[in-house]
Amino acid sequence: MSRPAPSARSEFSIFEPIETRWADNDVYGHINNVTYYAYFDTAVNRRLAGSGLLDIEAGDMIGLVVETGCRYHAPAAFPDRLEAGVRVARIGTSSVRYEIAIFREGENEALAEGHFTHVYVDRQSRRPKPLPQRWREVLEGWG
Amino acid sequence: MSRPAPSARSEFSIFEPIETRWADNDVYGHINNVTYYAYFDTAVNRRLAGSGLLDIEAGDMIGLVVETGCRYHAPAAFPDRLEAGVRVARIGTSSVRYEIAIFREGENEALAEGHFTHVYVDRQSRRPKPLPQRWREVLEGWG
Amino acid sequence: MSRPAPSARSEFSIFEPIETRWADNDVYGHINNVTYYAYFDTAVNRRLAGSGLLDIEAGDMIGLVVETGCRYHAPAAFPDRLEAGVRVARIGTSSVRYEIAIFREGENEALAEGHFTHVYVDRQSRRPKPLPQRWREVLEGWG
Amino acid sequence: MSRPAPSARSEFSIFEPIETRWADNDVYGHINNVTYYAYFDTAVNRRLAGSGLLDIEAGDMIGLVVETGCRYHAPAAFPDRLEAGVRVARIGTSSVRYEIAIFREGENEALAEGHFTHVYVDRQSRRPKPLPQRWREVLEGWG
Repeated sequence: MSRPAPSARSEFSIFEPIETRWADNDVYGHINNVTYYAYFDTAVNRRLAGSGLLDIEAGDMIGLVVETGCRYHAPAAFPDRLEAGVRVARIGTSSVRYEIAIFREGENEALAEGHFTHVYVDRQSRRPKPLPQRWREVLEGWG
Repeated sequence: MSRPAPSARSEFSIFEPIETRWADNDVYGHINNVTYYAYFDTAVNRRLAGSGLLDIEAGDMIGLVVETGCRYHAPAAFPDRLEAGVRVARIGTSSVRYEIAIFREGENEALAEGHFTHVYVDRQSRRPKPLPQRWREVLEGWG
Repeated sequence: MSRPAPSARSEFSIFEPIETRWADNDVYGHINNVTYYAYFDTAVNRRLAGSGLLDIEAGDMIGLVVETGCRYHAPAAFPDRLEAGVRVARIGTSSVRYEIAIFREGENEALAEGHFTHVYVDRQSRRPKPLPQRWREVLEGWG
Repeated sequence: MSRPAPSARSEFSIFEPIETRWADNDVYGHINNVTYYAYFDTAVNRRLAGSGLLDIEAGDMIGLVVETGCRYHAPAAFPDRLEAGVRVARIGTSSVRYEIAIFREGENEALAEGHFTHVYVDRQSRRPKPLPQRWREVLEGWG
């Protein structure tokens, strides 16, 4: 198999710390493939909340995930300290594609990298809503 | 966005039951996107163990996940009862691509569907090993 | 340490199936201590929903957990099939103590056993509410 | 119910940071009761590894959890930043009782507090081993 090379830290300008947990390690002694997606959710939603965009509890717009993917380059294990590089790859009318790479602290090459696509919907009706201007302005800065 | 239609139940011949759990639901009241990957791992590895191929505790060959992806068509929620359709899409020298679709019991269209690629390696050295003949024979039946 | 003996299957009359998952096993190759609490939540809330008492999505009464505990007698591992014995030990004005024991299918002695106490509150105000008569009647049957 | 008051920060001298994750919140919008036990495992094992005592991957002594408990005083939610206060309450021949309280950053009263008891065993035989002198010395400093 010819596989794309791991992304470098320089391809990201926004970083969120990721603390590993005991249960992130599976029976093979490394962080389970599923757990990286939990890191993706956490890094992006924490940043969205911290930027004043997402109000998880009460906002009338929420993000539903419609597509995800991840490639795994090298193992990591609890209690490693990790960081998530986050960037926005595409902003549609109601959707945003986030790309995330996971680095071990102090390392340049991604251990794993992937993406997810959010469609923003009304919390009650669950129908897509156009992304507010304020969101566009902030997310363009994550490019 | 033009998105591929959900897979139908008839595209799979092997099914594994999936019981949802309380914590599968996230704050938005439906099963979190990450959880579907836990279903994938569970369905395939349980089937591999039940077929006498994978010995999770002591076998000298283990499967490392190198790539995963999932598309989400419709929500589900605990305590729904689900089923995972499993098929093998490609068998390489040391790797296997599994495709999995998640159905609600009694429904024909997949709620979510995805894949993961296992590379089989030696448990100690973590270097790829050619897939044993016995594995090939069984996995060809999952096509 | 002198420790109480494991409960027997005969001490329970209500059982819920528990399917183990890949990630339930931790790095030591057995189901992690934390996971048993996920089984407790799942068994009790599924039974409450299935009995027509708990409406997770829309009911105006929800159960908040105020105290939990568990003792671990013997290990289990994915892909073991388990069962949760459930009983109600005490019904207060607004609270219920549930006791749960986890058995391997076909075994008589509990692998682990514990409890949790729910206080039932109004979903909006999060203030305790007296348990409705219908709940009392059903839960008395779980004694 | 008369319930013991929450512990204060001053009752602990060792603290470990705890980052909440998206999936820590359950459908009721707060951190699920089960998740606090994941914090306990993480805080204690990270500290044990960081102190040079526990070698998760290769050490011949591992800690098995035989008993756990937790009381919940007040809710928290992702993306709150938390801290775990850790202390050792009892050191036996082969066992240690750890007590852990979870605080929101900057707050004095515990949101939740609990304990777990580790029995230290040989990784292969899973039989109890006397706690090494080096462990005793370090853990006495956690009192």
